[in-house]
Amino acid sequence: MRTFHRTLLAVCAVLAALCTVSCTEQFHSRRIRRPVGLGLGLRAKSTAGMQCPDNKCRIYETYYIEQKIDHYGFINDDTFKMRYLVAQQYWDKNGGPIFFYTGNEGDITWFCDNTGFMWDIAPEFKAMLVFAEHRYYGESLPYGKESYMDREHLGYLTSEQALADYAVLIKYIKSSIPGAASSPVVAFGGSYGGMLAAWMRMKYPDAVVGSIAASAPIWSLNNLTNCNTQFTIITKDFTEVSPTCSKTIRASWAVIDKFGLTAEGKEQLRTSLRLCSPVLTGDDVAVIKDWLTETWFNLAMVDYPYNASFLEPLPAFPIEVVCSHIKSANATGVALLEELAEAVNVYYNYTGSAKCFNTSQTATGSLGDKGWGFQACTEMVMPSCMDGKQDMFEPSPWVYEAYVKECQADWNVTPRPDWPIVQYWGKNISAASNIVFSNGLLDPWSAGGVLKSISDTVVAVIIPEGAHHLDLRSHNKDDPPSVIAARNTEKANIKKWIAKAHGNL
Amino acid sequence: MRTFHRTLLAVCAVLAALCTVSCTEQFHSRRIRRPVGLGLGLRAKSTAGMQCPDNKCRIYETYYIEQKIDHYGFINDDTFKMRYLVAQQYWDKNGGPIFFYTGNEGDITWFCDNTGFMWDIAPEFKAMLVFAEHRYYGESLPYGKESYMDREHLGYLTSEQALADYAVLIKYIKSSIPGAASSPVVAFGGSYGGMLAAWMRMKYPDAVVGSIAASAPIWSLNNLTNCNTQFTIITKDFTEVSPTCSKTIRASWAVIDKFGLTAEGKEQLRTSLRLCSPVLTGDDVAVIKDWLTETWFNLAMVDYPYNASFLEPLPAFPIEVVCSHIKSANATGVALLEELAEAVNVYYNYTGSAKCFNTSQTATGSLGDKGWGFQACTEMVMPSCMDGKQDMFEPSPWVYEAYVKECQADWNVTPRPDWPIVQYWGKNISAASNIVFSNGLLDPWSAGGVLKSISDTVVAVIIPEGAHHLDLRSHNKDDPPSVIAARNTEKANIKKWIAKAHGNL
Repeated sequence: MRTFHRTLLAVCAVLAALCTVSCTEQFHSRRIRRPVGLGLGLRAKSTAGMQCPDNKCRIYETYYIEQKIDHYGFINDDTFKMRYLVAQQYWDKNGGPIFFYTGNEGDITWFCDNTGFMWDIAPEFKAMLVFAEHRYYGESLPYGKESYMDREHLGYLTSEQALADYAVLIKYIKSSIPGAASSPVVAFGGSYGGMLAAWMRMKYPDAVVGSIAASAPIWSLNNLTNCNTQFTIITKDFTEVSPTCSKTIRASWAVIDKFGLTAEGKEQLRTSLRLCSPVLTGDDVAVIKDWLTETWFNLAMVDYPYNASFLEPLPAFPIEVVCSHIKSANATGVALLEELAEAVNVYYNYTGSAKCFNTSQTATGSLGDKGWGFQACTEMVMPSCMDGKQDMFEPSPWVYEAYVKECQADWNVTPRPDWPIVQYWGKNISAASNIVFSNGLLDPWSAGGVLKSISDTVVAVIIPEGAHHLDLRSHNKDDPPSVIAARNTEKANIKKWIAKAHGNL
Repeated sequence: MRTFHRTLLAVCAVLAALCTVSCTEQFHSRRIRRPVGLGLGLRAKSTAGMQCPDNKCRIYETYYIEQKIDHYGFINDDTFKMRYLVAQQYWDKNGGPIFFYTGNEGDITWFCDNTGFMWDIAPEFKAMLVFAEHRYYGESLPYGKESYMDREHLGYLTSEQALADYAVLIKYIKSSIPGAASSPVVAFGGSYGGMLAAWMRMKYPDAVVGSIAASAPIWSLNNLTNCNTQFTIITKDFTEVSPTCSKTIRASWAVIDKFGLTAEGKEQLRTSLRLCSPVLTGDDVAVIKDWLTETWFNLAMVDYPYNASFLEPLPAFPIEVVCSHIKSANATGVALLEELAEAVNVYYNYTGSAKCFNTSQTATGSLGDKGWGFQACTEMVMPSCMDGKQDMFEPSPWVYEAYVKECQADWNVTPRPDWPIVQYWGKNISAASNIVFSNGLLDPWSAGGVLKSISDTVVAVIIPEGAHHLDLRSHNKDDPPSVIAARNTEKANIKKWIAKAHGNL
């Protein structure tokens, strides 16, 4: 049970990185689902969008394209309306490129608003921006409110179908927008969207001349990477800030367990950790440990060098701030709990508005969707485990059988972890070309990333000071030189791909 | 109606090229279907096979692997047993390659027996041979006798599913046969099988280090090639042998029509053309013209430089022999019919056993299958047309709407001609690598072939004197130098791919 919960945590983290919404609600409690149905727009009918994160307006138009529910078979002819956003204001119709975001597991407007890098460089490249929404997320629900009803409705939620949607959309855009036929398309994506961007170039290289795959853990799938690596990275992040901090966290699990043995101990836990729950029961001790584990995981993902508001509003270098509250080398008992509470307070209460902590949430927000839970139970099996030695967490092995049982119970499906390895070439991607894989080394997800260049055209970019796809965020005065260099490498590659597409190389 | 019929003819021809069986029955009359069901073997249980075409024994073992009916979705968990043949007698377990035939639309034992090139070169390369049967053909019927019952059963018959089957099988072989893990896999295929071989490298380049795609008309799909080109090639084949021959054939359609106007004329047609039918009705005139069209098409496909028995037992250079009977420059009326009959006699009666000609058959045999009819009505739309000017045929435009109506009536499906263009990169295959596209210029299917090299590693090989994948046939003392050169080029490329896979390049 816990193993699966923690896997979902990891999965959750992928999404959470690119949205400001409640990932917990989305994948864990699964209480909220936005009842967004079809019929919101007609094919290629637009509605204007305007968002102003970072004080920069994102002006785009919203369109819908009719897609086949099943590109790969001929039993079901159903179609659905897939949403995509288009910004043409920077585009040079005479060969200017198209920057195409391969949407991941969430509302595409969030990815659009939070991928500042594309907006930052669009004027320089005179690029059209397109953000395509992944089927079964946001407004692109194939069967409206019934999309998540059962596996008969959900069974078309796969990465291959999404890639096909994107390939069809690119063909449609190139054939329907005057001038776009000669526009080279560059794919962009972060996290699971980065995996899709890479796979897009691997599977449809006629559609995209190259891909920027940021923090794309393509090798977190199945058994391609040691399941423990994410957690050793998190531990390293904390240890480098403060050995005391990670040591105390490592010691905390036994302390919590000890408090959990008695009713008085539970009450002490509840009050010292400032939990909202009026009373703790037996299971709540495990929930507390999961909640703390998720908190440390999420902090490692969003350990950005400036104030940011992703999973939660946070200060610059949040792990430093968190660890500044865990400073007693040998804290035990209540003292240790109180230090944890102060640390956690940084993550959940930077704005000072929280009176207590809710262990069922690890990030704020209101958007909810169950899709990734299904994807994790079908194709996107990403094992995770902790051993408490190389990492500061409570030991928790990867038990595939338990995972399968949960998936069967939750979704009536049996995972096919081997299949994406076949479909996406496992670790042998040397036949690919024109992909930049970027990874920040602070990011737990770099564990499954491509960290070494494969060839002249499949290039790894490392951002030692970077957390989860820092490079896709808008430029910031506090950007470390490594992310500036990464973006420059990405831009240089994009320029090369475009020049080659235009026959200028 | 006729347009569709002729399209089926073209489709038929693809299959016919690699088997000695009745293609006519398979796709036109659709009367016979082999009731081969599942349960003939267990997973990986073998039965020995031995065939001796060309006086050379093909010794192999037969296996079955359990495949998912739907690799791309999670609604249907059904599995089926896919047949494959393995010959290990030449294989060097220490890194010897695996030559993998990507089976096309028919019984895999026929492709195995008729792809002599693989058998010829296996000892030199110390290669294992594997021949994989395409789902829904031969014994690999997912739902046994019910496989063709309706679109609910047939809807998983797509090229993408077949490619996935092959990728899964390759992974299974490499992981289960001791020594095979380090064996580079080279894909081979002819005709539709050649398309699959090319696509295999394009979509799964980790699974195969390179592909020999012989007479693979990947650009016959949809509108990538002028629909008339096949028929201008056939006309050229005949004209180069004898301008009188093609001129007479061009004139024959009006003559046949004229005879068809009266009962006496029909009787003359029947007797002069030596037809088996006891009496001709109105529709039979159109049938006769289709039958002759198919005959000339098939002759162009199998215009081999030595005796061969593909569609029919035939002499060397059969078009020369056929045209030797069409020698009167201005034959008309009965004289023209009698010349046609003599010409046709070469194709249908080389052995001298036929008393009359059956217009519902254009090739002998007993294997029957409807699968390609379904594939042609779903993904594999290959337009064909004649104008009677650039070609010697009766004008017949490509009318897509009529084609769609036939498909809806026959299979309850609507074709998706655009989809394989998206899936298989249209004409922009420059991102591919390690593919040899070979084409014989006598072959009508070269119309849709890749006739110019795309890059250093996507190489076109032209065989001016070659008909349909002559290069895949066993070597023969009468092979023209061009096919010997083609095979040498193919071998050189295979060697290069293998060396690179072993890190020796």
